[in-house]
Amino acid sequence: MKSDLLSNIYNPSDLRLLKEEQLTQLAQELRRFIIDVVSVKEGHLGASLGVVELTIALHYVFNTPDDLLVWDVGHQAYGHKILTERKDVFQTNRQIDGISGFPKRTESVYDTFGVGHSSTSISAALGMAIASKLKGDLNKQHIAVIGDASIASGMAFEGLNHAGVTDANILVILNDNAIGIDPSVGALKKYLTAVKNGKNPRQNNIIKSLNFDYSGPIDGHDLPKLIKELNRLKKIKGPKFLHIVTTKGKGLQQAEENQVKYHAPGKFDASTGEIHLKSEENLPPKYQDVFGLTILDLARKNEKIIGITPAMPSGSSLKFMMEELPERAFDVGIAEQHAVTLAAGMATQGMMVYCNIYSTFLQRAYDQVIHDVALQNLPVIFCLDRAGLVGEDGATHHGVFDIAYLRSIPNLIMCAPINEIELQNILYTAQLGLNNPIAIRYPRGRGVIKNWEVENFGHYEEIKIGEGVCLKNGTKTAVLSTGTIGNNVIEALAECENANTIAHYSFPFIKPLDINLLNSIFSTFKNIITIEDGVKNGGFGSAVLEFAAAHNFKNDIEILGVPDEFIEHGTVPQLQQLCKIDVKSLIKLFSNGTK
Amino acid sequence: MKSDLLSNIYNPSDLRLLKEEQLTQLAQELRRFIIDVVSVKEGHLGASLGVVELTIALHYVFNTPDDLLVWDVGHQAYGHKILTERKDVFQTNRQIDGISGFPKRTESVYDTFGVGHSSTSISAALGMAIASKLKGDLNKQHIAVIGDASIASGMAFEGLNHAGVTDANILVILNDNAIGIDPSVGALKKYLTAVKNGKNPRQNNIIKSLNFDYSGPIDGHDLPKLIKELNRLKKIKGPKFLHIVTTKGKGLQQAEENQVKYHAPGKFDASTGEIHLKSEENLPPKYQDVFGLTILDLARKNEKIIGITPAMPSGSSLKFMMEELPERAFDVGIAEQHAVTLAAGMATQGMMVYCNIYSTFLQRAYDQVIHDVALQNLPVIFCLDRAGLVGEDGATHHGVFDIAYLRSIPNLIMCAPINEIELQNILYTAQLGLNNPIAIRYPRGRGVIKNWEVENFGHYEEIKIGEGVCLKNGTKTAVLSTGTIGNNVIEALAECENANTIAHYSFPFIKPLDINLLNSIFSTFKNIITIEDGVKNGGFGSAVLEFAAAHNFKNDIEILGVPDEFIEHGTVPQLQQLCKIDVKSLIKLFSNGTK
Repeated sequence: MKSDLLSNIYNPSDLRLLKEEQLTQLAQELRRFIIDVVSVKEGHLGASLGVVELTIALHYVFNTPDDLLVWDVGHQAYGHKILTERKDVFQTNRQIDGISGFPKRTESVYDTFGVGHSSTSISAALGMAIASKLKGDLNKQHIAVIGDASIASGMAFEGLNHAGVTDANILVILNDNAIGIDPSVGALKKYLTAVKNGKNPRQNNIIKSLNFDYSGPIDGHDLPKLIKELNRLKKIKGPKFLHIVTTKGKGLQQAEENQVKYHAPGKFDASTGEIHLKSEENLPPKYQDVFGLTILDLARKNEKIIGITPAMPSGSSLKFMMEELPERAFDVGIAEQHAVTLAAGMATQGMMVYCNIYSTFLQRAYDQVIHDVALQNLPVIFCLDRAGLVGEDGATHHGVFDIAYLRSIPNLIMCAPINEIELQNILYTAQLGLNNPIAIRYPRGRGVIKNWEVENFGHYEEIKIGEGVCLKNGTKTAVLSTGTIGNNVIEALAECENANTIAHYSFPFIKPLDINLLNSIFSTFKNIITIEDGVKNGGFGSAVLEFAAAHNFKNDIEILGVPDEFIEHGTVPQLQQLCKIDVKSLIKLFSNGTK
Repeated sequence: MKSDLLSNIYNPSDLRLLKEEQLTQLAQELRRFIIDVVSVKEGHLGASLGVVELTIALHYVFNTPDDLLVWDVGHQAYGHKILTERKDVFQTNRQIDGISGFPKRTESVYDTFGVGHSSTSISAALGMAIASKLKGDLNKQHIAVIGDASIASGMAFEGLNHAGVTDANILVILNDNAIGIDPSVGALKKYLTAVKNGKNPRQNNIIKSLNFDYSGPIDGHDLPKLIKELNRLKKIKGPKFLHIVTTKGKGLQQAEENQVKYHAPGKFDASTGEIHLKSEENLPPKYQDVFGLTILDLARKNEKIIGITPAMPSGSSLKFMMEELPERAFDVGIAEQHAVTLAAGMATQGMMVYCNIYSTFLQRAYDQVIHDVALQNLPVIFCLDRAGLVGEDGATHHGVFDIAYLRSIPNLIMCAPINEIELQNILYTAQLGLNNPIAIRYPRGRGVIKNWEVENFGHYEEIKIGEGVCLKNGTKTAVLSTGTIGNNVIEALAECENANTIAHYSFPFIKPLDINLLNSIFSTFKNIITIEDGVKNGGFGSAVLEFAAAHNFKNDIEILGVPDEFIEHGTVPQLQQLCKIDVKSLIKLFSNGTK
């Protein structure tokens, strides 16, 4: 097949010059382009392959960027980016200074709303539609494309519930492929599946009950049908809903057959689909697996243990427990608010609930942490995966606010273990029975102990809540780290010429702080440096400042961490360098002495 | 009528000794008891009057406290409290050291889950039900009672979506009275109304589509019918849903006729229902009215202005704008997440959106503030009413976390005006066009300027973003206040013998901080005191500590604010006293000098 259609398309104006019968070829070319780039550069694959036809149809039928198109989450927007002036830079996807893996307003006028977290598209598109109406733009179209996993989240329901009583020009397109990152769950999913199978009458369905003009379900890979239906809907005023059925990974056999693995497969063979396996020998474990293996091991021995994940069985590695102990491990779908209060309800009945939520997604359940857990002092165990800088997912996904937003909540213990052993041990300690809720934060990616699974896994030691530890003595300056960023300090000190002047203390507990240790440190060292992989405003460093002020210490204190700006995408080391918390920056700082 | 049934009831065991035909009399007595106490002691009236029959029926049919009953929000739980061992202390309702206005676990075994914020009951009850099943308690009942305003919130949908695919013994009772604090809104409400009017087939409805065993709608004031239906449902396993129709304020004519006013009417005549009007002459305005009048005034002149409230038209006073400019003022229901992202969508189209959310409820939309507004730097104007200590509503409702949780968000301006004039002026300044989002926080209750509406309202002055101000000179100590708590400082200094030694600076901007002013203050005064009506951990005081550390100042700094514990209910002055930020405590502190 000659790739001569896509190469002539710079933006949707070019696309709209094509004849409708050419679009099937374009779909093939676009799919091939995505596969070719993602197979080498990595990224999210399956979602974008699934909406190739929809993407083409939308830009063909609607007058983008005047008509406003919002992609929910944005994993599926690669085709959209390629067709909207970013084909030539698509190979920089998710790299530092390259384009974002998600739609982003500052990147393109075609990206009408920045996304990353799910279920925002209906609210955003409705806001745009109401604004257009007020401005007298009565023919402007506003389209939200949302998946069946995202539409089950509460926020999406709130958007539908409002949209249904407006006369705003909004079209919600449900891209129903029965999977998010992991397979979709819940009663709505079950209902939608019944609809697809013709077991529910089309009229009088949930969406219609919410006052939408509902159409579908139709085959989302059938371009003529899609175009015909979108052209029809374009002429209808008010809130409209189109239900399309697609296959995630469409067009790459292996991706269709193994949709979870091909959500973001890493490098693979563009022609066969075969994933290039990296050797995992001699690599430390992923922190998520330390969690996943440990909770399963603990749950085998303690029948009060329950695990909860909102739609991240694979990403959190709760899947190990879900497979072996399905009655005690729950995927509740993209429902962070529900996940937290469900955990609270279980905790009232004496269960020990490990509620595993990515740091950035716990922002969705902040009120529930305060109001349903901490206020009642229920000993829920929050496991915050992907805390700190997460790398290529970028600004929407960094887990850098958690220390600041959790530290102010009474009753809550906050722990950031420095490595796999400490993570395993705090997970163990939590189920011995704490009198408080606890939040345990740990990062994306791998730890630092190569033989953890063989040598350490299962050898538990109880951790004393609130105790810090001296990792290295020194004479002049004390570095206080919390969490795994402490490993950067260890590395830097190993390479530092004046390391003998610098002491290193690890504070796994951000709350409660180890006041005795702090008193001793502040009495001993003139210079104090704190370091964390979270925002400096209100974080661990601030807690140390509060200690110093309350105890009238006058030491010099320098706070290292994430500055007061949104950090974009790049590799974790690149982003740490931006924040001056990478090993090299620390070596430089330590070598120059402090301010 | 002789009140001899209620007087013999200490807890539901006594209730269950009555014959079913006696319950109608008991309902009359219970209603009268609530009216008699609330008319004198104040509190939430209408909601509890509406569920008198349901409350009696639930405790009569189910074996509380072994069967677990969760009241959503809890405004409606007065009857429940009276029937569950708290009749004799009910007159202490909402008073300091008295019982809470909401169900609270530490208060009674009958209060299975603490509530206050809406839409948590389904998740909590489901958590309990799953725990019971795991523990082998297969006959235990778990009941969530939720109103039609609360069930439309996203979190409730998440709970239903999960519950529908479990076999947990959960009964959700929808108490449909078509009103929350203000009348309910949204597509679901419209749908439920159609159901009640017989316009939708009972089978194949939304709830049934979510896999619940649905029954109703039935008259929630018909005790025999309620009891019969609850007895039937008690025997059915799995997720069940009962739709009952009630009248808020039932049994007090005026409360039925004016449901918004009688939600929490203040003192009233127990026999006639007549509200005892307090003289409002010579009182400063409520801050909410400063907002409500100002936004309407500004919106008349600036057609880009939009107002949004999630279900608080009366409480926020957005109702003024909703009445005059309904096309630009939106009540989106209890949907804080949607409200924020809707505002963001509107802001992308150039609208100036005032999104008014109580401080404590913005916790529900924390992720949306970060991810949809601040990350995209959209100039949404957040108006945080009920910031600081709110008084009688207690621990669930204090708006004391906002400074800490918002201050860490990049791009966001945070402003706490000291009085009505500054509030009006920052509301005015915001619509001149900021390059950033802004959060404006102000408290519950009245301001300090008696003639504000006559003398100041509408006389706008632009405020310079980020500037603090010296309110009083001094020689030794500088007090730095933010927001209306600064008025306590002013009062205290007016009564302080050594006031000449104490300077007072007001910082309306928590972010950005006035660095120039801080430099000058820290260079001039040895002792610094900061004061805020929010949590000390991570708040305004912490921001000042961060400044001092970054600029290497060694002054003594004392931070005043809300300590690291949940503050219960009481009057605002009582609670300020607990936190040592009341006028008397300040006089004492200032008179003794600082630490």
